[in-house]
Amino acid sequence: MSKLEGIFTPLLVPLDDRGQINEAELRRFVSWLIERGVHGLYPNGSTGEFTRFTAAERRRIVHIVTEENAGRVPVLAGAAEANVKETLFACQAYADMGARAVAIVAPFYYKLTPESVYAYFAEIARNSPIDLTLYNIPMYASPIDVATIRRLADEFPRVIGIKDSSGDMAFMMRMIAAVRPNRPDFTFLTGWEAVLIPMLMIGCDGGTHASSNVVPEVTRKMYDLYRAGDTEGAMQWQYRILELFDAMLYPFEFPDGFRAAAELRGFHFGGGRMPKTGLQRADEKALSAVLHCILADFELVNPPAAGCPVRHGDIGQDKLQQMVHEVFHEMKNRGIL
Amino acid sequence: MSKLEGIFTPLLVPLDDRGQINEAELRRFVSWLIERGVHGLYPNGSTGEFTRFTAAERRRIVHIVTEENAGRVPVLAGAAEANVKETLFACQAYADMGARAVAIVAPFYYKLTPESVYAYFAEIARNSPIDLTLYNIPMYASPIDVATIRRLADEFPRVIGIKDSSGDMAFMMRMIAAVRPNRPDFTFLTGWEAVLIPMLMIGCDGGTHASSNVVPEVTRKMYDLYRAGDTEGAMQWQYRILELFDAMLYPFEFPDGFRAAAELRGFHFGGGRMPKTGLQRADEKALSAVLHCILADFELVNPPAAGCPVRHGDIGQDKLQQMVHEVFHEMKNRGIL
Amino acid sequence: MSKLEGIFTPLLVPLDDRGQINEAELRRFVSWLIERGVHGLYPNGSTGEFTRFTAAERRRIVHIVTEENAGRVPVLAGAAEANVKETLFACQAYADMGARAVAIVAPFYYKLTPESVYAYFAEIARNSPIDLTLYNIPMYASPIDVATIRRLADEFPRVIGIKDSSGDMAFMMRMIAAVRPNRPDFTFLTGWEAVLIPMLMIGCDGGTHASSNVVPEVTRKMYDLYRAGDTEGAMQWQYRILELFDAMLYPFEFPDGFRAAAELRGFHFGGGRMPKTGLQRADEKALSAVLHCILADFELVNPPAAGCPVRHGDIGQDKLQQMVHEVFHEMKNRGIL
Amino acid sequence: MSKLEGIFTPLLVPLDDRGQINEAELRRFVSWLIERGVHGLYPNGSTGEFTRFTAAERRRIVHIVTEENAGRVPVLAGAAEANVKETLFACQAYADMGARAVAIVAPFYYKLTPESVYAYFAEIARNSPIDLTLYNIPMYASPIDVATIRRLADEFPRVIGIKDSSGDMAFMMRMIAAVRPNRPDFTFLTGWEAVLIPMLMIGCDGGTHASSNVVPEVTRKMYDLYRAGDTEGAMQWQYRILELFDAMLYPFEFPDGFRAAAELRGFHFGGGRMPKTGLQRADEKALSAVLHCILADFELVNPPAAGCPVRHGDIGQDKLQQMVHEVFHEMKNRGIL
Repeated sequence: MSKLEGIFTPLLVPLDDRGQINEAELRRFVSWLIERGVHGLYPNGSTGEFTRFTAAERRRIVHIVTEENAGRVPVLAGAAEANVKETLFACQAYADMGARAVAIVAPFYYKLTPESVYAYFAEIARNSPIDLTLYNIPMYASPIDVATIRRLADEFPRVIGIKDSSGDMAFMMRMIAAVRPNRPDFTFLTGWEAVLIPMLMIGCDGGTHASSNVVPEVTRKMYDLYRAGDTEGAMQWQYRILELFDAMLYPFEFPDGFRAAAELRGFHFGGGRMPKTGLQRADEKALSAVLHCILADFELVNPPAAGCPVRHGDIGQDKLQQMVHEVFHEMKNRGIL
Repeated sequence: MSKLEGIFTPLLVPLDDRGQINEAELRRFVSWLIERGVHGLYPNGSTGEFTRFTAAERRRIVHIVTEENAGRVPVLAGAAEANVKETLFACQAYADMGARAVAIVAPFYYKLTPESVYAYFAEIARNSPIDLTLYNIPMYASPIDVATIRRLADEFPRVIGIKDSSGDMAFMMRMIAAVRPNRPDFTFLTGWEAVLIPMLMIGCDGGTHASSNVVPEVTRKMYDLYRAGDTEGAMQWQYRILELFDAMLYPFEFPDGFRAAAELRGFHFGGGRMPKTGLQRADEKALSAVLHCILADFELVNPPAAGCPVRHGDIGQDKLQQMVHEVFHEMKNRGIL
Repeated sequence: MSKLEGIFTPLLVPLDDRGQINEAELRRFVSWLIERGVHGLYPNGSTGEFTRFTAAERRRIVHIVTEENAGRVPVLAGAAEANVKETLFACQAYADMGARAVAIVAPFYYKLTPESVYAYFAEIARNSPIDLTLYNIPMYASPIDVATIRRLADEFPRVIGIKDSSGDMAFMMRMIAAVRPNRPDFTFLTGWEAVLIPMLMIGCDGGTHASSNVVPEVTRKMYDLYRAGDTEGAMQWQYRILELFDAMLYPFEFPDGFRAAAELRGFHFGGGRMPKTGLQRADEKALSAVLHCILADFELVNPPAAGCPVRHGDIGQDKLQQMVHEVFHEMKNRGIL
Repeated sequence: MSKLEGIFTPLLVPLDDRGQINEAELRRFVSWLIERGVHGLYPNGSTGEFTRFTAAERRRIVHIVTEENAGRVPVLAGAAEANVKETLFACQAYADMGARAVAIVAPFYYKLTPESVYAYFAEIARNSPIDLTLYNIPMYASPIDVATIRRLADEFPRVIGIKDSSGDMAFMMRMIAAVRPNRPDFTFLTGWEAVLIPMLMIGCDGGTHASSNVVPEVTRKMYDLYRAGDTEGAMQWQYRILELFDAMLYPFEFPDGFRAAAELRGFHFGGGRMPKTGLQRADEKALSAVLHCILADFELVNPPAAGCPVRHGDIGQDKLQQMVHEVFHEMKNRGIL
């Protein structure tokens, strides 16, 4: 089978008014992404809030995604469950559904030593009916270190790649230096779109980027420009995606900023699975207006009716400025100004 | 209903050879603990590896525990599930099973802001059919800060207490100072037995201690001595429990050291749900010999056949020394020495 | 020589309008503290901002303090300099000035391994003409771990104690368990007054407390009550000192809150060595009004003219409330209300 | 004056047998570096162990360096002293010596808020007789955040650049995005040679690299290759410098690995200012043999007499392997094998 490469979308999951999976919208979203050029789909990732769904819902999500995809792009299915036995059941289920591979996050909640992280992945790799990629996200789960990655890559052909969301460039280089000599087929994907182009330069094969839920055209274009040798062009987009990424990531609980921005592309994502206070909802609305302006600059949506002031790069100030802007607009509309 | 107080055991879960819940052993264990004086039982805590069981298994554990308990002591059931809706289903189920209250850990994996932590617990408290306690374990889950605790305690009578596993004495005092004036009924339990007696001195109502799976007589005795005014006697045990706690906690993956020590009390806990390498199994065996000697000093088990050298308090050195000791014993047995 | 015990004051340093050491005020302050019962003086600690003075100024501070003290209480002089050679010169100088011992903070800026921390202190201990205490403050300097403390205590009689500012009770117990069997004379002082009484209960000999610059009567009373067996009385003060400590520590840069509070006791501490923005000065003024009210509750100063509203324990809210209170007072004064 | 760019060497300081500055060797070293192509010199940085010298020694180091340099390359002099007044004296002294600019590390020991970090640099910038660069090294000192950098860059023309040693690529991009629009002359230098080429790609002007003490030819070549458009060639060296950097950085206390490697280039650096145990000295010797082999691969030194086995990239294993290799070599030499 061919090596995984390019931009994979860790899919957001649209919910209906009752908080249930909105199947119709998910299908529409999947096809929309494929049409805009994503190279692959990655359901049940952190962006897909896999921990907030039940085991049955996680299976249903992959089922919908693979069915709607209908073989158009490779599907990398998040398969981590409560324990190895349950995870292996999920691996089998996703193999049967036609996933290209599964992605398994390192054990979380408990923070484990490298030896335990190795033992965990080794047991899965030994028994999995489908190729698997490791998923390193040290801010949320036990870290996977370089020695462990090399050990797993050297011992298990079933382990075909790693997604790393640390954003640490030197760490990625250490992994590549340790693994590639023995496993030239091994795939390295970054989960940190803030540095996608530099990651491609040091040898990554692509990325799984939450932002590709929102601007799939842009993440694809960045990849294509870089592969075509236009580093400068790619870097210009890199700086713009950084602004968007920061505005979706930091002022919101993850992945709510990405959900809010994807709404602006014309999908109904619903309220999310975590309860929110009134204060939070108001804040999200104000932040969403800034996201609207950033997306308008990308020429992917029309600017808001009130227009957009010049941004200053500090999301707190930009939010405030946008709110003032809207109030003035409203006052003008009402003939007060 | 009466206030929660005393020592609650966050139950370890015995597994059989296939890694399934060993019901008979769990029942035997529950009764053994109650007979040795624990004030309450706490299934589905971190010690009970709740994240490594399926939703159905978590329910089955509480079912077995409440049934075997048969009303003898209050049961505090860990009820955190994938999302609020599933958690509320579990709350209802545990209320029906006769649990005294549920314990809900703060959201984990994603690290949330205080406002989101508040929103989460508020939504549960608003709808729960059973009293609930908050569970703060910042090393594994989103932290619950003092302002959030006060807010929840002030607004929701259903929130009746907090278990804090940070071990931070000043933090516990800040919580008590913030909450008790308005809610004298609110229960403060520490999850850090290393400092149980100091925590009682500053006003805690008790603790939920993994060590009480291993030495329920000792944690009970500490509590009783302190309540009876014998601070000095209680502190002598405190120093001894600290040695045991450290030896079970740090050189093992949690909660494997507690499982290994509880085995020495005569229960079959099985191999655990996480795979282990041969290296890890050998290391656990060597460490278990040190635990055996510590428990022998408590006069709760017979010393190992090879006897016990004097310990030096550094678990690594103690392990090495014990291994040398055993080799000499074996050589003597074989007539080599 | 007798064992160090009791409450040592890590002296704040009064500055004049040009930012120079205010000798007259420092002398007055030293005598005031001794008269209010502190057991010892500790110049050149973190509270004394030792890093912000030149080597010559540090010597001058100890000179003034020891001279003014005139043998009334033991002086523990902070002697850390740029390197071991310079530190040993300072040790000699402070020995000549009559200091009882020196205190040496673990190496800072670079974060060192335990082996290097050991090598550093061993070299000093081997050559020092005066007893020395270790100073562990892991939030600012390389941590000193239990094995290192034991090693140093076992090998060097010159090392007579440790001051630990981690506030970690279990860590203090581990140190005591590791060191005291071989060195019953070794002194354990806590630098975290938030938990002074619990620290005395587990066996500490006393503390070096920034708060004793502000309320030397209170820290002394806490110590005396506990030693006299009145744990409950001591704990009541413990909760009150916690409120004061938190209000001086968290909303200010350290040690500016302690400087602001000590000003309220009638000393001129000057503006500090670090530049401040106008925003910071305004904020400190507002926070100082809350400190004024807390100290008035201790009946150590008169309440502010505007009076004090009830505090809620959240320093941000208390500050706001106090500001509103003052504005209303001012408006009444001017006949507006 | 022209913008700072290229590779600056944060100079190691050679010591004599008594631990004093070895002036002759320092002069020889300075000229050697310049001849091998470094673009500038940076005395009194973290690599230069500025905290371990006295204020007088720091001045002497800059004096020697500027005198020996004799205007050949720009000198960036580390000028942080105990407080602002002392720092300004140093700024004046270094201006008089002919330094191009000074570098000021953010306040350390105490961890300050952004507002205080701003106030500190603003006070210096307002009064400095010489251009200054900020130095952000969050692992050792208070972090400088993006808003603070922008504020300082916007307000003070004297602030002409920043050296950032976080190695965080996205952070560097955020700084560049925030500052460059208003200050196109502002210099961005990375202190993390592990990612030098990616940093140049995102727009950095160069770096100050401890490794350039050891392999000034290589860091210069990397810079030149990248500037000449040969990204691939530059990246090949990047991977090789990463191996060297990791081997000098992680298994040693900083900057001892760099000192050990620079010794291999033919300079006498002496034992360092921090005491070491026998264990540490033996370990450094063994690690030094690995460094010797890496440098031999760069064809900058002859390989060790015993030869070099193939390295595996894990420094611990490489060290062991090298030791075995040397023992075999020695045994062959003695005719045992």
